[in-house]
Amino acid sequence: MNLSDFSEIELIGKISRKIKLFSKNIVKGIGDDAAVVNYNKQYYLLLTTDSLVEDIHFNKFFAPEQIGMKAIEVNVSDIAAMGGFPKHALVSLIVPKNTKLDFIDKLYDGMNKKCRKYKINLIGGNLSNGKEISVTIAMLGFVEKKNLCLRSDAKANDLIVVTGKLGASAAGLKLLGSNKKGSSINYYLNPKSKLNAARLLAKYGINAMEDISDGLATEVRNICNESKTGAVIYKEKIPINKNTMIDSKKLNKYPYDLALYGGEDFELVFTINKDKLKKLNETKNGIKFTVVGKILPKKDGVYLLDKNKKTKLNRGYEHFNGNR
Amino acid sequence: MNLSDFSEIELIGKISRKIKLFSKNIVKGIGDDAAVVNYNKQYYLLLTTDSLVEDIHFNKFFAPEQIGMKAIEVNVSDIAAMGGFPKHALVSLIVPKNTKLDFIDKLYDGMNKKCRKYKINLIGGNLSNGKEISVTIAMLGFVEKKNLCLRSDAKANDLIVVTGKLGASAAGLKLLGSNKKGSSINYYLNPKSKLNAARLLAKYGINAMEDISDGLATEVRNICNESKTGAVIYKEKIPINKNTMIDSKKLNKYPYDLALYGGEDFELVFTINKDKLKKLNETKNGIKFTVVGKILPKKDGVYLLDKNKKTKLNRGYEHFNGNR
Repeated sequence: MNLSDFSEIELIGKISRKIKLFSKNIVKGIGDDAAVVNYNKQYYLLLTTDSLVEDIHFNKFFAPEQIGMKAIEVNVSDIAAMGGFPKHALVSLIVPKNTKLDFIDKLYDGMNKKCRKYKINLIGGNLSNGKEISVTIAMLGFVEKKNLCLRSDAKANDLIVVTGKLGASAAGLKLLGSNKKGSSINYYLNPKSKLNAARLLAKYGINAMEDISDGLATEVRNICNESKTGAVIYKEKIPINKNTMIDSKKLNKYPYDLALYGGEDFELVFTINKDKLKKLNETKNGIKFTVVGKILPKKDGVYLLDKNKKTKLNRGYEHFNGNR
Repeated sequence: MNLSDFSEIELIGKISRKIKLFSKNIVKGIGDDAAVVNYNKQYYLLLTTDSLVEDIHFNKFFAPEQIGMKAIEVNVSDIAAMGGFPKHALVSLIVPKNTKLDFIDKLYDGMNKKCRKYKINLIGGNLSNGKEISVTIAMLGFVEKKNLCLRSDAKANDLIVVTGKLGASAAGLKLLGSNKKGSSINYYLNPKSKLNAARLLAKYGINAMEDISDGLATEVRNICNESKTGAVIYKEKIPINKNTMIDSKKLNKYPYDLALYGGEDFELVFTINKDKLKKLNETKNGIKFTVVGKILPKKDGVYLLDKNKKTKLNRGYEHFNGNR
């Protein structure tokens, strides 16, 4: 059996069943955007790691600075999705022997730019020789205990809400791959985590939250899996911006598929009680969000409602059997 | 300019000069075996990351369990070298799509075996698709503030001491590469950190400490670089076991070169005041150690004494321009 025979949820499930923990201080191990460890009376420690691999997470269209910036942003996005803020980072760089010093220099410029933005301390790392380039960041952050947002916190009847617009990054990648132009490309090359929005939402008191790194479908499945619930997504409510619509046409792609099964939008999906959402709408917080679905009891399953027609919700981007 | 035009000390220096830190809590950033961050009254937090890359840090002779075990041991070794103990780990795995589930299973068996040994919590990770296999661990540990051992803590006239015997791992690698047999192979395939010895030494009150991962020459150079001192190593005092001597002959290699310029022995090198060493010798602690040199004022430089002949101390293993 190869890895490509399994979904990521199955693989992570297999791995986490093998793990034994030795400390009572661990609030959440494998299975969320970041691990959660008790820190002090006020805070939990958050720990996450994410890799960018050549030709998978970046390609020849990325400038070295952009690779560095993306490496930091994707990890900040994981910390943000827990309701927390980033603090320290370690960088493990694997590069071929013939790599130019200038590449490393610009890669670090990109990382430094984002570390300055978020006040992250780059406190260590490792440099190894290998055949392909990969940038792995391990990031530490903190979250106020009352603000922690776990994937497992969704409750039946919660509304499913997303920030921003979806599908632009996947459209951008496909435009580049087919030598076409369009404004979606910028979303793919310069992803931005939604740290401020996540912090605001976490303080406000939402339930589950996740960043949308592997397509809305996978993220909602993750939440349902951890919360032991079902869910419905209303397809026509998924927010897609005009330019993504235009770029999808150039690609002969259905834009909702890019939003559901594409990836790397780094927007947030969260679940919230209906009354709380009403109040959130009344506060002038500057966050743009859209209700796209509802958490259901587990027995109802996870499905997509397409013009009142119940259809199967496929999996989103999968690293071992998906196409990006 | 390619990376191979620079030594690792030069590369790390270039990188660390680019970094800006934003927190007063950082005791030591880039430039030691692990980063040191203030934690509470009693403890510092230690953070390190190390990668194993296919055909660089492991090869076809490694069973998947051995790769997993080595990945944990090399990171524990970094935490140990600070005087601390490991606590939590994150795993970033990059593997090709056609990897067998069985490989991942056994790799995790190996990691789990070592995590049980050291009571390390494997609390998270990331699984990515790539052309070659790499296993990157980020490890968190703690050290009692009074026990912290920095590379920069060496003082002129300190004795330079190593634990155990050196050169066996490098001999093992070379035996495998030339289809020869010998007991050194076991040292290469099954490296073991010296956590207990490091903890004991740190509590006893040594000065600088480092693990010997890149050959004694590089490690002593690192200590001198950070402590702004010189050093002399007495070549004939370097402890080499009988089997390494026998295996070196099979390889037509000079065994002292394997100890000085090989790598991955994961023994400890530390510096200590002469009188303290005398007392340490009198305690029955079970640690075998050997004085191999002396810290000198910076102006004296770093050199090797070979039968009273002053010779140049070359660099040890370098990831970008060395041969292992």
